[in-house]
Amino acid sequence: MEFKPINLQEKLAKFSDHWSPKIIAQMNDYHFKLVKFQGDFIWHNHDDTDEVFIVLNGEMSIEFRDGKVDLKQGELFVVPMGAEHKPFAEKECEIMLVEPAGTKNTGDKGSDLTAEDNVWI
Amino acid sequence: MEFKPINLQEKLAKFSDHWSPKIIAQMNDYHFKLVKFQGDFIWHNHDDTDEVFIVLNGEMSIEFRDGKVDLKQGELFVVPMGAEHKPFAEKECEIMLVEPAGTKNTGDKGSDLTAEDNVWI
Repeated sequence: MEFKPINLQEKLAKFSDHWSPKIIAQMNDYHFKLVKFQGDFIWHNHDDTDEVFIVLNGEMSIEFRDGKVDLKQGELFVVPMGAEHKPFAEKECEIMLVEPAGTKNTGDKGSDLTAEDNVWI
Repeated sequence: MEFKPINLQEKLAKFSDHWSPKIIAQMNDYHFKLVKFQGDFIWHNHDDTDEVFIVLNGEMSIEFRDGKVDLKQGELFVVPMGAEHKPFAEKECEIMLVEPAGTKNTGDKGSDLTAEDNVWI
């Protein structure tokens, strides 16, 4: 075991691209990932898992087919398994995601926004 | 689905006791919990799961039999499955835990610090 904390701001400083989650920690078969959002993502869903969003810096929204949730720094939201959703951030927003290892950012949809799902920083 | 963010500071304001984790969200069969630490906890381990600590406010340490990690606000640490550990905070520290639903705070040890494992706030 390495007795070293994982500092979220230090990890965030290591990348600048948008919509491309980076893994910072593994707990059992789950990954903790950091990602930066800006603009509109695509509609998608995850058929086999819930997905947690925790806003570290900034503000973002998640649109659903029947509603919308606005999130700011220090807020958390659980997107239920199977729920179609579209993340959106007017200005750059920094987020921690928690989800099973191997979860694709675009879920059931292929897109040029589909990111590698196994990039550690 | 309720389109309402979970605000960590608002949830933290709802309790003041120490060492007694409160559930704020569920993702699949995992719970996100808030807890306040002050002083020394007991040595224990979790035989069947990793456990994630994320410091929201303050500073804390986790002692292991062969080392120690110091954590401050914005830092995360994964305690590996089976690793004996003892959390400690000189001043009150506010933490988010992520672990499987039903995980006991004192792990394999019974203690008067053993808390109910299914309290939501």
